[in-house]
Amino acid sequence: MSQPDSQPRNPGLAERLADTRRFSETLCAPLSVEDMGLQACPEVSPPRWHLAHTTWFFETFILKPRCPDYPPFDERFEYLFNSYYNGIGAQYPRPRRHLLSRPDTATVYRWRAQVDEALQELLARDDDPALLALVALGIEHERQHQELLLTDIKHSFSYNPLWPVYQARNDEDARAPDFAWLNYEGGLVEIGARPGDGFHFDNETPRHRQWLEPFALASRPGTCAEYLAFIEDGGYRRPELWLSDGWDWVRQAGAEAPLYWFLDGGAPEYYTLAGRRPIQLHEPVAHLNYYEADAFARWCGKRLPTEAEWEHAAARLPVAGGFVDNHRFHPSVARAGAPDTPAQMFGDVWEWTASAYLPYPGFAPEEGAVGEYNGKFMSNQMVLRGGSCASSRDHLRASYRNFFYPHLRWQFSGVRLAQSMEAPRGPSPTAIA
Amino acid sequence: MSQPDSQPRNPGLAERLADTRRFSETLCAPLSVEDMGLQACPEVSPPRWHLAHTTWFFETFILKPRCPDYPPFDERFEYLFNSYYNGIGAQYPRPRRHLLSRPDTATVYRWRAQVDEALQELLARDDDPALLALVALGIEHERQHQELLLTDIKHSFSYNPLWPVYQARNDEDARAPDFAWLNYEGGLVEIGARPGDGFHFDNETPRHRQWLEPFALASRPGTCAEYLAFIEDGGYRRPELWLSDGWDWVRQAGAEAPLYWFLDGGAPEYYTLAGRRPIQLHEPVAHLNYYEADAFARWCGKRLPTEAEWEHAAARLPVAGGFVDNHRFHPSVARAGAPDTPAQMFGDVWEWTASAYLPYPGFAPEEGAVGEYNGKFMSNQMVLRGGSCASSRDHLRASYRNFFYPHLRWQFSGVRLAQSMEAPRGPSPTAIA
Amino acid sequence: MSQPDSQPRNPGLAERLADTRRFSETLCAPLSVEDMGLQACPEVSPPRWHLAHTTWFFETFILKPRCPDYPPFDERFEYLFNSYYNGIGAQYPRPRRHLLSRPDTATVYRWRAQVDEALQELLARDDDPALLALVALGIEHERQHQELLLTDIKHSFSYNPLWPVYQARNDEDARAPDFAWLNYEGGLVEIGARPGDGFHFDNETPRHRQWLEPFALASRPGTCAEYLAFIEDGGYRRPELWLSDGWDWVRQAGAEAPLYWFLDGGAPEYYTLAGRRPIQLHEPVAHLNYYEADAFARWCGKRLPTEAEWEHAAARLPVAGGFVDNHRFHPSVARAGAPDTPAQMFGDVWEWTASAYLPYPGFAPEEGAVGEYNGKFMSNQMVLRGGSCASSRDHLRASYRNFFYPHLRWQFSGVRLAQSMEAPRGPSPTAIA
Amino acid sequence: MSQPDSQPRNPGLAERLADTRRFSETLCAPLSVEDMGLQACPEVSPPRWHLAHTTWFFETFILKPRCPDYPPFDERFEYLFNSYYNGIGAQYPRPRRHLLSRPDTATVYRWRAQVDEALQELLARDDDPALLALVALGIEHERQHQELLLTDIKHSFSYNPLWPVYQARNDEDARAPDFAWLNYEGGLVEIGARPGDGFHFDNETPRHRQWLEPFALASRPGTCAEYLAFIEDGGYRRPELWLSDGWDWVRQAGAEAPLYWFLDGGAPEYYTLAGRRPIQLHEPVAHLNYYEADAFARWCGKRLPTEAEWEHAAARLPVAGGFVDNHRFHPSVARAGAPDTPAQMFGDVWEWTASAYLPYPGFAPEEGAVGEYNGKFMSNQMVLRGGSCASSRDHLRASYRNFFYPHLRWQFSGVRLAQSMEAPRGPSPTAIA
Repeated sequence: MSQPDSQPRNPGLAERLADTRRFSETLCAPLSVEDMGLQACPEVSPPRWHLAHTTWFFETFILKPRCPDYPPFDERFEYLFNSYYNGIGAQYPRPRRHLLSRPDTATVYRWRAQVDEALQELLARDDDPALLALVALGIEHERQHQELLLTDIKHSFSYNPLWPVYQARNDEDARAPDFAWLNYEGGLVEIGARPGDGFHFDNETPRHRQWLEPFALASRPGTCAEYLAFIEDGGYRRPELWLSDGWDWVRQAGAEAPLYWFLDGGAPEYYTLAGRRPIQLHEPVAHLNYYEADAFARWCGKRLPTEAEWEHAAARLPVAGGFVDNHRFHPSVARAGAPDTPAQMFGDVWEWTASAYLPYPGFAPEEGAVGEYNGKFMSNQMVLRGGSCASSRDHLRASYRNFFYPHLRWQFSGVRLAQSMEAPRGPSPTAIA
Repeated sequence: MSQPDSQPRNPGLAERLADTRRFSETLCAPLSVEDMGLQACPEVSPPRWHLAHTTWFFETFILKPRCPDYPPFDERFEYLFNSYYNGIGAQYPRPRRHLLSRPDTATVYRWRAQVDEALQELLARDDDPALLALVALGIEHERQHQELLLTDIKHSFSYNPLWPVYQARNDEDARAPDFAWLNYEGGLVEIGARPGDGFHFDNETPRHRQWLEPFALASRPGTCAEYLAFIEDGGYRRPELWLSDGWDWVRQAGAEAPLYWFLDGGAPEYYTLAGRRPIQLHEPVAHLNYYEADAFARWCGKRLPTEAEWEHAAARLPVAGGFVDNHRFHPSVARAGAPDTPAQMFGDVWEWTASAYLPYPGFAPEEGAVGEYNGKFMSNQMVLRGGSCASSRDHLRASYRNFFYPHLRWQFSGVRLAQSMEAPRGPSPTAIA
Repeated sequence: MSQPDSQPRNPGLAERLADTRRFSETLCAPLSVEDMGLQACPEVSPPRWHLAHTTWFFETFILKPRCPDYPPFDERFEYLFNSYYNGIGAQYPRPRRHLLSRPDTATVYRWRAQVDEALQELLARDDDPALLALVALGIEHERQHQELLLTDIKHSFSYNPLWPVYQARNDEDARAPDFAWLNYEGGLVEIGARPGDGFHFDNETPRHRQWLEPFALASRPGTCAEYLAFIEDGGYRRPELWLSDGWDWVRQAGAEAPLYWFLDGGAPEYYTLAGRRPIQLHEPVAHLNYYEADAFARWCGKRLPTEAEWEHAAARLPVAGGFVDNHRFHPSVARAGAPDTPAQMFGDVWEWTASAYLPYPGFAPEEGAVGEYNGKFMSNQMVLRGGSCASSRDHLRASYRNFFYPHLRWQFSGVRLAQSMEAPRGPSPTAIA
Repeated sequence: MSQPDSQPRNPGLAERLADTRRFSETLCAPLSVEDMGLQACPEVSPPRWHLAHTTWFFETFILKPRCPDYPPFDERFEYLFNSYYNGIGAQYPRPRRHLLSRPDTATVYRWRAQVDEALQELLARDDDPALLALVALGIEHERQHQELLLTDIKHSFSYNPLWPVYQARNDEDARAPDFAWLNYEGGLVEIGARPGDGFHFDNETPRHRQWLEPFALASRPGTCAEYLAFIEDGGYRRPELWLSDGWDWVRQAGAEAPLYWFLDGGAPEYYTLAGRRPIQLHEPVAHLNYYEADAFARWCGKRLPTEAEWEHAAARLPVAGGFVDNHRFHPSVARAGAPDTPAQMFGDVWEWTASAYLPYPGFAPEEGAVGEYNGKFMSNQMVLRGGSCASSRDHLRASYRNFFYPHLRWQFSGVRLAQSMEAPRGPSPTAIA
């Protein structure tokens, strides 16, 4: 890129692209070559695969269709690193990604370099808005995979009784602020991304009206101490606290605590990216699945917020909190926020909502294979909001919709309580005629 | 019941109870003793078990707590015929219900008689509103099991290549009315059961406001002919038409047509409760799961209605249509309705909605073990509306919420199209900042 | 059979046929119509299916090929009741036999009557040796299914916590004789069925020579008391006592005792065909699988006998013992035998041997589909010898080879110890060069 | 090892140890660090695990009990790299070995070096026969794992559509010799390892007598061409050629050819350690499981040899053939042997026998945890004889018993035909009395 005229036409975007691509590699720096191939279960992918797949995304959706002279690095990678885009073609089976020792790590890095160079050249000469939109999409796509890379390697490491340390970390000497309720009047509100507001995914659109009854939100997420009290009160042994599918999960999984927790009599411990350590009780509890978050809320006599309630409450807040940008790779203890403002709405832990992941009224996915990005997953999953300690701050916003199956818990996923105010209930729900 | 004063205090309810109990036995009349034990998969139950469990419901929730002198028929039945009430105690494993050859059919009928007599005696002397509410609940509970009894025996019979005939039936000589769209303005509507409106389940409450954008509903459900066109256009081979989980289901199940259909080259046939027969193309298509209904709608360029849209459209319609009361045990061809009125909203086939089965704002389940009836199933399932040819007409209403897992299709479940009007979409969903 | 000349040409065989067919129905007499359809797992079959399949065997292998005028009862039954004969055609899936409520029990009995009548007519007019051999095979086939019918219904009943009683029974007031060893010199012995000796299966041939080192056999099978001592000594918790596959089975199955045993602290009980009862400690222990029999033998410091050792020891003994003919349907306490004679070699419990079920040298299966009877199962199974309380005495002989997978234990299968004498061992098995 | 007197007391053994240890590392030389962690299924292990486990064997069974001053490299490795020795303690779950990215490859090599040094020091000062026997066992143990390392990496590589090349190789320009039968008289023969004959495993003892009827062996293993003819004659579609369990395997696995074969219409290809290549038709066919070997033999109208027949025929032959020592890592085309001598009895492909893997008469395993080496696997497996192109020549001998489950085929396992001569059959196997 020595040409004198190769100033990118969209300098901000080109730089953001370069930064994002570089950050993926920064995240892999603490990993050995051996670590780069780990895949503990079908839901997680090896770090090397994440590096390759994000590269595949740019090569497949941008370079191949837009650069006739671009020589694909290896035609066979189109199949190997396709995640789930049927519009592109068949996919190498997801549970076997750990078997791809070839291409090796060094080759993947070379591929990344070739694609990065070609992208920068392209951006220097082309400012087609559709191109820029795709590059922006590729950046956010890579940020999502950065988060997965961290949660995936944490999961894979957790099966190794040597308790690998991804990065050492000091404990915090902090207390969570006292719990309080924040009230919201509801009414006819709008949620969803606004055209012109900046990047957003198709699943955040169209912005639309929704009626909310009055509700209250917890001033902060539930903490490890609070969740421990739930456990000690028999939380995992009382079916009346669980959804039916949740109770089935408890029994089949033999669940007794959040993922990564060890409760064997002594001081409670958990596996973290800093190794196995004593649980810091003031931290927001993480690695809950939907069933656990819901059961905890029931035990409290409360419920989870809907995604509309959450977004309504978050809409005017700054996107501030514990993100991957702080390089802690672990949730932080909440700081007291401004008065009447919920703390930790963004960052630290994703917050399970009571909302199923479904299309907004009038939703239409993008055209072409890129349209498979979000829309086809709109069944059987629940929405999470707010981002976590593994998310990039720039990646998040109030309208952002994350989604996972209700039994999964390898994300940094926690719980924020909600309750309905003046619930408009009739007398007996099964009143006789 | 020889006492001169044993006139039931709530004559309508007592009679309805007797009628309902009798109808369960009427439905079993065409079955052999051998048929009474069939259970083809964990989701379905043997007819004899349905007869026993509905009796258990009355004995457990009414006679035992309210009649100190009532001698339970057999204390061991409390465990054997508990379906899923953890509040009552442990349950005999559901997949093994077919192994309960004892108590035999005659014994179950004797149990029914004892319980029926005790209930009538109780109703004759007690008109506690809570009792009446529970009896009403038990009646509707039994009606639900009558529907299951029919769909379950159809499913179990379908594995027998002798194609058992539950009841012979003549084909209809009728054509479905032409397809049309019916428009609705939406706005801030109310859905849910109104206190005082008569019996309803807890999951229909509280009645609450919801905002609807303008939409249109199909004038009738999709027909077998229309669904056949979807199949012939490669519907089951085109991943772009399916939700991701739906496509996984297609491949794992090897699905190529609705349940019970045979497409082997000749005239299409299906297994029905009248045996194996040629498909009547003008009938509403049945035995679709959610994925199939959704894929069909996508192929049409449309979508499924939400449950709020459906209920809003149905709210002022009479509960009329093809119910079990007509003794056809099969969906009927739609008749043209009144102008600007959707046909077959009630009866014939349940209609999959685009709504996940979740609690209404402010929902609280009933107190006690009866509270497990509906609330604990509010995850991973989708709502169906309107009832089917196996439902009792008296059991249905506009606010009625049925729910099943999206992969299941042994119910008489069909599809009604919907579309959004004037969708408030912004320009590009992934517009760059 | 009104012809004056219809005296069967092989009167003994015809009578044996009639007796055997009648006995199948006698065994079903204590069963309700509901019981006739029970199938608790793929390995067991419903009683009604046994009645039908044994009838299928005669119709398929004898009446259809040999009686051009014989009208098959229902052509569809050829598929429905084929167990595993690929040479005949496809088979209704074994795990679903419980779904065949049609043909109903009465129809199966009518089928049996039609086939029985046709067989008797055939035998009255035809004495082709090949026919007689097939009828003899059909008789022994039906006897095998009679044994299965009993063990299968016991298994299916065992899932019903009402503990159905097939037939009441008094306990024995008897003690097992003291344990002793009986010595055998071995040498070059012959095993296998001798041509001309009477009916035998193809898998017992050819009679052949085998070299045996000196060995000793236990004077009687192991008792419940002895097996209980093994359990109390931690038998199910000590991996060193188990084959590797056996230990895997113990852990996966959570096994802690023989099938049907209840050891919950009080007096040990078991489920029997006479209901749930206190364990009679002097009885031979039954319902062990191969792994359990082998682990018990290791715990004793002994081993199981090979089938050649067993047959050599049994060859000159009368076929006497507790068979189904005594109508106890349960193993009896051993009686002291003649001096130097092992007790209970025949009847009461099958005895697991250390021999895999493999072809004898020179073995060739029968021609045609009947050749699938035994030969194709010669892998992954172990040989059992001697018959059980559910076998017919006339069905057994010293050369009889029964075979089951090593993890299965729903047969009346027990354990007889053996040991090698003067084992010709060298010094250290891994001596260095 | 600077002591002037550190000449090993058993110089041959110490050198063999050093050579063997070195060869494991030589075999890993073509592998990348990424390859070292591959595990495609529970049955195979990552190369790095093999390097670690063989080291564990020496540290656990020799250094820890015999060298009080020896500091174990890392106490946690006792659990991590225990394969299946319950006598030592619990084991890290086998299916997860690929998750052990730590200890990394370099650490495992350091561990190897520490153990090697300590072993050489020990051998220099101690010549306890029990020690020498354990070292000899450790050497043979490591040779077994070298073979597994090759077959395992071949299997793991085979899932990568880039078809990794472990080592390039030229095709042979050779033809297999014509097929012939070699006759053996049988009689009372001896098999098993002779005390004093050199190293052997416990499962080869005690040497004992066995009676053999006359038989014939094929002059060479079956070739790819011959196996292809079986396939083309419908071998995988004809149930009559298969054992029942084998036919179940065919249908469940969808098997149509040996493992690694591609028959898609063009010239047949297979995946080899030299990449994907055209099948060399004169080579012995490899990667058959027992069911395939048995079905092929049936199709030929023949059978597999028993292990006694095989050993009797091999007993006087030199241990010569295609072993790992030739660095081809692939079976070679047979060369014509001496007259009346079977070719390729040793090396190239393991030969499935008709014998189940069971204890020899009088067998007793070694004392202690080492006794778990062979004895506890004596159920459900079949014996293979002769070694393969991945075995060390020094590791093999006529009495050597290899064993695998009948459905497994990732070893270089082939087929040699046998037949019985003058089979002593009687007339009809089911002759009537």
